[in-house]
Amino acid sequence: MPLQKPFFATPQDAENAFYEAIRRADLEAFMAVWAEDEEVICVLPSGPRLAGYANVREAWRRIFESGRRFVITLSQPLVLNGMLVSVHNVHEQIGVSGVSGGEGGQTAPILATNVFIRSAVGWRILVHHASPTQGEPAGEISKTLH
Amino acid sequence: MPLQKPFFATPQDAENAFYEAIRRADLEAFMAVWAEDEEVICVLPSGPRLAGYANVREAWRRIFESGRRFVITLSQPLVLNGMLVSVHNVHEQIGVSGVSGGEGGQTAPILATNVFIRSAVGWRILVHHASPTQGEPAGEISKTLH
Repeated sequence: MPLQKPFFATPQDAENAFYEAIRRADLEAFMAVWAEDEEVICVLPSGPRLAGYANVREAWRRIFESGRRFVITLSQPLVLNGMLVSVHNVHEQIGVSGVSGGEGGQTAPILATNVFIRSAVGWRILVHHASPTQGEPAGEISKTLH
Repeated sequence: MPLQKPFFATPQDAENAFYEAIRRADLEAFMAVWAEDEEVICVLPSGPRLAGYANVREAWRRIFESGRRFVITLSQPLVLNGMLVSVHNVHEQIGVSGVSGGEGGQTAPILATNVFIRSAVGWRILVHHASPTQGEPAGEISKTLH
C-alpha cells in the first residue's frame, strides 16, 4: 500500500520536513516534500544542477546510502511569503558524520535559497539552491509579498 | 526629472535587462530590474547574503565603480513559469576585465537561480542566487507551472 503523502499547510512546515528528512536520511520523507508534478531544481554546494524529480531522487539516494549523516543547524532565516510562492533564504551549518568511519566534521558555512509553491496538495519545495558562503549574514527578516 | 522605469512584460525580458545592465555596468538600469516594494535577496558566488534593495544597490555600486567589466555568456537555461512567479536557473560564464589594469580573466563556471515576480509594474527580479559549480550541466528545459 503506498504511503499517504503528507500535506504541508505552510511553507515553513514543508521546510521543516525537508531538513528533518535530511537529518533522518529518510529518502521517502525527503522526496515527499518536493513538488511532484513540476520540474524541480536542486543545487548542492559547488555541485552540478540537478533538474527533475528523478534526478534529485537519485542523487539523494546515493547521498543517504553513502552512510553520511548530517546534523543541520539553521540560522538567519529570511522569508518572503506570497499567496502561491514563498522564498526562504537560510544559513546552514552542517555537521557530517559516518564518512569512512572517521570522526566527521563541519562543512563550510552554506547559504540556501528554498522556493516553495502552493499546490492542490499543500506547499512543496520547487527549488533548493545551496552554496558555500563567506562573510557576516544579514539579520532575520520576514516579509509578506504584496 | 526621474527616469521612467521600464516595464518588463515577461520574466525573460527582465532577465535580459538584468544581464545587459551588468554588461554595461549601468547601476540605474540594473536596479530598475529589481522588485522595489519587496525585500530582495542577492547572493554572489561565495559571498554573503545581500538582503534588501539598498544593500543590493550599494554592493553593485561598488562592483561597477571598481572598474571591473563583465562579459557574461549564459547557457543551459532552465525555466519554470507560473502566473505570478517564474524561476530561471542558468549557467553563467563570466569574463572579467579592468582589474588592476591586468588582462582580466574568466571566472569559474557559475550557476544562478533567478526568481521573478509579476507586479503591477511588470516582471521584476526578487532573488538572484549565484554560486560556483562543477560538473556537467543538465539540458535545456522550459516548463509551465500548473
